[in-house]
Amino acid sequence: MNDKLKEVLARVQAVLDEHIFPLDAEYHNKPWHLVVPYLDKVREKVKAAGLWIPQIPTEYGGLGLSVAAFGEVSALLGGSPYGHYCFNCQAPDAGNMEILIEFGTANQKAQYLMPLLAGDIRSCFSMTEPDHPGSNPTIMGTVAIKEGDEYVINGHKWFTSAADGAAFAIVMVVSDPHGNDRHRMASQIIVPTDNPGFKFIRNISVMGEEGSGWHSHAEIKYENCRVPSTHVLGEEGDGFSIAQKRLGPGRIHHCMRWIGICERAFDMMCKRAVSREITPGKTLADKQTIQNWIAESRAEINAARLLVRDAAHKIDTLGASQARIEISIIKFYCANVMQNVLDRAIQVHGALGISDDTMLAAWFRLERSARIYDGADEVHKSSTAKQILKNYR
Amino acid sequence: MNDKLKEVLARVQAVLDEHIFPLDAEYHNKPWHLVVPYLDKVREKVKAAGLWIPQIPTEYGGLGLSVAAFGEVSALLGGSPYGHYCFNCQAPDAGNMEILIEFGTANQKAQYLMPLLAGDIRSCFSMTEPDHPGSNPTIMGTVAIKEGDEYVINGHKWFTSAADGAAFAIVMVVSDPHGNDRHRMASQIIVPTDNPGFKFIRNISVMGEEGSGWHSHAEIKYENCRVPSTHVLGEEGDGFSIAQKRLGPGRIHHCMRWIGICERAFDMMCKRAVSREITPGKTLADKQTIQNWIAESRAEINAARLLVRDAAHKIDTLGASQARIEISIIKFYCANVMQNVLDRAIQVHGALGISDDTMLAAWFRLERSARIYDGADEVHKSSTAKQILKNYR
Amino acid sequence: MNDKLKEVLARVQAVLDEHIFPLDAEYHNKPWHLVVPYLDKVREKVKAAGLWIPQIPTEYGGLGLSVAAFGEVSALLGGSPYGHYCFNCQAPDAGNMEILIEFGTANQKAQYLMPLLAGDIRSCFSMTEPDHPGSNPTIMGTVAIKEGDEYVINGHKWFTSAADGAAFAIVMVVSDPHGNDRHRMASQIIVPTDNPGFKFIRNISVMGEEGSGWHSHAEIKYENCRVPSTHVLGEEGDGFSIAQKRLGPGRIHHCMRWIGICERAFDMMCKRAVSREITPGKTLADKQTIQNWIAESRAEINAARLLVRDAAHKIDTLGASQARIEISIIKFYCANVMQNVLDRAIQVHGALGISDDTMLAAWFRLERSARIYDGADEVHKSSTAKQILKNYR
Amino acid sequence: MNDKLKEVLARVQAVLDEHIFPLDAEYHNKPWHLVVPYLDKVREKVKAAGLWIPQIPTEYGGLGLSVAAFGEVSALLGGSPYGHYCFNCQAPDAGNMEILIEFGTANQKAQYLMPLLAGDIRSCFSMTEPDHPGSNPTIMGTVAIKEGDEYVINGHKWFTSAADGAAFAIVMVVSDPHGNDRHRMASQIIVPTDNPGFKFIRNISVMGEEGSGWHSHAEIKYENCRVPSTHVLGEEGDGFSIAQKRLGPGRIHHCMRWIGICERAFDMMCKRAVSREITPGKTLADKQTIQNWIAESRAEINAARLLVRDAAHKIDTLGASQARIEISIIKFYCANVMQNVLDRAIQVHGALGISDDTMLAAWFRLERSARIYDGADEVHKSSTAKQILKNYR
Repeated sequence: MNDKLKEVLARVQAVLDEHIFPLDAEYHNKPWHLVVPYLDKVREKVKAAGLWIPQIPTEYGGLGLSVAAFGEVSALLGGSPYGHYCFNCQAPDAGNMEILIEFGTANQKAQYLMPLLAGDIRSCFSMTEPDHPGSNPTIMGTVAIKEGDEYVINGHKWFTSAADGAAFAIVMVVSDPHGNDRHRMASQIIVPTDNPGFKFIRNISVMGEEGSGWHSHAEIKYENCRVPSTHVLGEEGDGFSIAQKRLGPGRIHHCMRWIGICERAFDMMCKRAVSREITPGKTLADKQTIQNWIAESRAEINAARLLVRDAAHKIDTLGASQARIEISIIKFYCANVMQNVLDRAIQVHGALGISDDTMLAAWFRLERSARIYDGADEVHKSSTAKQILKNYR
Repeated sequence: MNDKLKEVLARVQAVLDEHIFPLDAEYHNKPWHLVVPYLDKVREKVKAAGLWIPQIPTEYGGLGLSVAAFGEVSALLGGSPYGHYCFNCQAPDAGNMEILIEFGTANQKAQYLMPLLAGDIRSCFSMTEPDHPGSNPTIMGTVAIKEGDEYVINGHKWFTSAADGAAFAIVMVVSDPHGNDRHRMASQIIVPTDNPGFKFIRNISVMGEEGSGWHSHAEIKYENCRVPSTHVLGEEGDGFSIAQKRLGPGRIHHCMRWIGICERAFDMMCKRAVSREITPGKTLADKQTIQNWIAESRAEINAARLLVRDAAHKIDTLGASQARIEISIIKFYCANVMQNVLDRAIQVHGALGISDDTMLAAWFRLERSARIYDGADEVHKSSTAKQILKNYR
Repeated sequence: MNDKLKEVLARVQAVLDEHIFPLDAEYHNKPWHLVVPYLDKVREKVKAAGLWIPQIPTEYGGLGLSVAAFGEVSALLGGSPYGHYCFNCQAPDAGNMEILIEFGTANQKAQYLMPLLAGDIRSCFSMTEPDHPGSNPTIMGTVAIKEGDEYVINGHKWFTSAADGAAFAIVMVVSDPHGNDRHRMASQIIVPTDNPGFKFIRNISVMGEEGSGWHSHAEIKYENCRVPSTHVLGEEGDGFSIAQKRLGPGRIHHCMRWIGICERAFDMMCKRAVSREITPGKTLADKQTIQNWIAESRAEINAARLLVRDAAHKIDTLGASQARIEISIIKFYCANVMQNVLDRAIQVHGALGISDDTMLAAWFRLERSARIYDGADEVHKSSTAKQILKNYR
Repeated sequence: MNDKLKEVLARVQAVLDEHIFPLDAEYHNKPWHLVVPYLDKVREKVKAAGLWIPQIPTEYGGLGLSVAAFGEVSALLGGSPYGHYCFNCQAPDAGNMEILIEFGTANQKAQYLMPLLAGDIRSCFSMTEPDHPGSNPTIMGTVAIKEGDEYVINGHKWFTSAADGAAFAIVMVVSDPHGNDRHRMASQIIVPTDNPGFKFIRNISVMGEEGSGWHSHAEIKYENCRVPSTHVLGEEGDGFSIAQKRLGPGRIHHCMRWIGICERAFDMMCKRAVSREITPGKTLADKQTIQNWIAESRAEINAARLLVRDAAHKIDTLGASQARIEISIIKFYCANVMQNVLDRAIQVHGALGISDDTMLAAWFRLERSARIYDGADEVHKSSTAKQILKNYR
């Protein structure tokens, strides 16, 4: 870790400590429209501190951090549910920025990328479908048919995160339903959310919370949704390969964000352990079970962090395709570590742990999704094994 | 299981199938005041069917089921979040009925028990404190000082479930703070909730849900709360022994309720497995990981049920004090089985599993408390071991 | 549990306490020829006590216990590696007795069953093959071709337990290799071990131990092994159905034997916990981790026992085929409980636990096979799930 | 990892592939006196290849590898039970060399260190006692009383590994039983094994194996064992601090050795998965459970390796005392990963896995000790937690 990165991390930590951590427990159960004015102020401070969009190349106004370096930033930001948002590197916008930079036309960049980088608009990524398993994208049900110089999109999506209030969606569609090459069947198309064919159905209530704004997961129907054919990202048929590109850095982002959650939960667990008196003069910290949990959590978090760093380093040096095994491993490994650490932290807090007086309960319920989205544990395990076993045949 | 019980169970199941299961998924995320009119209608049907308060002796208008027999009923009712409520055997009222029957004076019974049995009022049980661990009741902070023929109660309680809308609380207090016998230090006192010293602070938001009515967990302050000394249950100093009495049957009630949840989640998991197509002609049921989860869940649920039945049988035949080990074991064993089964059921459902379109997500987050209330896992494990090791010294 | 069974169990326990437990730790690492003279003396005492072959119908000289009742005996006998042998109800002889009683001709009974029941000879069951998975018996490689009134058997078996010193083997063979009905392809044939075509290759060293006599697992080749066609059990083609018959009671036998091991390991763990001083005045029993293990072990052993009892009861009342799910569940559930309990008991014993000064180490290594033989965990889990899911299609 | 190290690793791997791996499965169940002639030949090849005692500073004839660099070597050597022995870096000799180099007098070095480095003699380290827990060295029972210019040692040790055939022992004793400073109570003293007071009692049978030579664990009594006072290592009272010094590098050595075992077991598991046909055309590799195990094992082994590398790097750069938490974490983490990986590898091998036809069974039973020696899991977890919690008080 070089000195420049250390300095960036110190400044990121300072913003978190001063402006974000003190308020997140209070805000985290509030609706988005009450939270966002406060976050907008923090965003100004982040810009003023020169830390805005740290993951973005310098020519686009970012800090130009490598995947590995941004991973370290992400591990800090993950400590707050608002960390990434305040630095404008939150999912799904960060991924959309990334593919617009790599695949966007000049017009697409002007119209969609630049305001996104500026933080003036938000976006969403519309892939998951209620009626088809995410693990097999070749049997997707949303179809874009080319008519003249337009695409006509019809389909049913859900868990389109942050669609509520977004300016545009990047939609994953089947553009060549009868094609022979299943890796060329799909495309990604930009759809402005004010398009009359973009039907916002609802914010899906998730783990007791309907959410709103950036913090939401929408059900969307595309009903004869017509967009100019220039809205396709890259070439028609590039949908899968663009999705693959997006994969590696996004995985590091998420896994490090989870590690940020783990670190904060771990810290809370330790503080609780030393402060909760059980019998006069004896605290939870004196109980061996609690000691076991602290030691096991520390071991698992350290292991998770080292695995993610190793994967990030491989992506930076060898490219994402050479790091496929590592990228799959960190997905299931880190998601499970997070669930374990949160579960233990809650148990150490007792009744307080299930209350919303701390953020532990929110993390426990909302981050349960980590083992499902972007490929369920089981999908990644099978995929990891198949990659490994190729060398044995 | 005798024929009479079989017949009762069949009729309970019929009420559930006809009146409760069809609507609970729709209602379970609604506020209490919208749910209760519907439940009141079901209660009338339960009364009409002669199944009201099944756990209560016949001389008080119930079915007079044994602990073991009521356990079987509870396992059915647990399948819905509203099952026990509809039969007026829900916590904490059921426990309060039980101790009022055993320890209540004629006046207490007339004023508090009878309307409770009739379903005309609700009640709560005020024990847990934010500042003291539930695992050591001798260092409780709520104190009742006798002044003349009144008790003056001061203290701070939380997680007083269902206090919102309850007519009275039974409050656990230290009545003899300087006493030598720590098992005679505490008393249970009836406090009407309209007492000016009973300060309702808030419904604590738990796992994202503030709740209301019966479905809530209140923070309460007792501030110079004066009640007649005739409001004590049993004798002054009986607090612990009454709490112990309450323990055994309540444990069976809860564990069987959890098994009811497990069974319904298991059923959902199986239905999903056979219906969710992954590749053409292949469903989740063909995946070995899903098969493992189904087999492991079936094994664990069966084991849990047999353990609870065994404990209930011991309570009925030998008394709760002879069944202490079994009663502790089922607490931690069943709560963990439930968490495992729910976790697997969610994973099988994928994105649907974390949405509130099924009840799985609500169970996952709200029943996380099962490993905490009534003694955390760790407390019961230590206590079980200490009981066992007594025979080795 | 009726009074007659209680009385039998008390007498079995007395034999164990007086004659078997005191010496098994000393004998368990000795070769079979040094152990067997001692065991023969105990066998005489068992006969004298009227407890010989408790699992066998009274008309054949046994106690005529039901599957469930013998299960209780087995749980006691399992406490010693020699328990079942001393009562002549050890695998694989017990299974062979059972199928000879049900399927044997008068001649087969006279020649093979009667001396087996008397304890004058031993036998083995030759099914597992090194080159074919046990989980799919239809691709077995050992073939019996009928020539005139003889079968000519060729094939390669291993893990033919107790073949060393056995008088005869019951061999599972494919008798109809080109048959259409895969459930009628196999037969079971009696082969005397002095047949020149029965080639004893070696006792396979298992977990560091070559073994000998009853305590061994042989590799066998059948090379043009000719036996009269009257040596077939039942009809030709009955091999699978006989194997199925054998299944249920054998499973109860094994699972209850494992529970016997668990109980003794649990007892050792508790004794060690209260006696091993860690710091002056504090023993292992004061450590919460040890308490956790004791509580978890007690819960799991109780659960295992109740599951086995439930399965045995179903076999006795409904038949093994109605209890298929229960029989599969106890196989994987109990084997894993045993491994967990032994692992914890060793850990509590520290260096002593891995030494052969107690029996824990031998159980840990030799009973690792429990998760493999008679169907690996994974096979039983898949099979359980498939049975359950039939009801959902 | 620099080029020099890569080149060393390649040459180490070549020796393993050519001379060690091909024979270890055949030799690993043989007694030491049959194995050692073969190993002596390999040792000559190692010397010839300039790879002898790689962990030892160049001025003593070694390769002078850092802790981290030797860790990488150890991970390779660990793949065979004979790897470390062939390079003369096996426990306990490697630890004894290390402390003799740091603390030995000129005479001690001439008499004990030089022949040890040359591979002409072996040694042992005598610390563990049957009657006292290893987790609390201050209540050790072996005492050395100074009489004139001699120490008189009395005490009872066991699990003194490799004592059988060793030329000398380094014995941990209490030299100041009534001292006030419990960290100055102990000393380490060199005792030649031909001293008449050094009573070799037995090689303790461990997990079914008595062992002999280097592969053994002895019980020793010290009965009025008189050695010159010049045999003390460092100063009297240095026993604990020398033991601490020994700790860090020894931990890396062991953990990396375990990772070597894991890698080889993992490799066997993969080979078995792709080669074992279950149904025609389908192998174990097609079963999702096997895929899960492969993926989980890969994740855990990678995590373990990264944790050990991180700890080794901290030892090299900051010193062992600054790496206490990391050193404790890898002990319990890696030992458990090894047990998990071996367990899965055995299960994938089925009956073959429990046979001694592969090394899996030997590793499974003999490396069970990894969770016990050098501090049981539980001791390290408590110690890790206490270190962490210091920062919270």
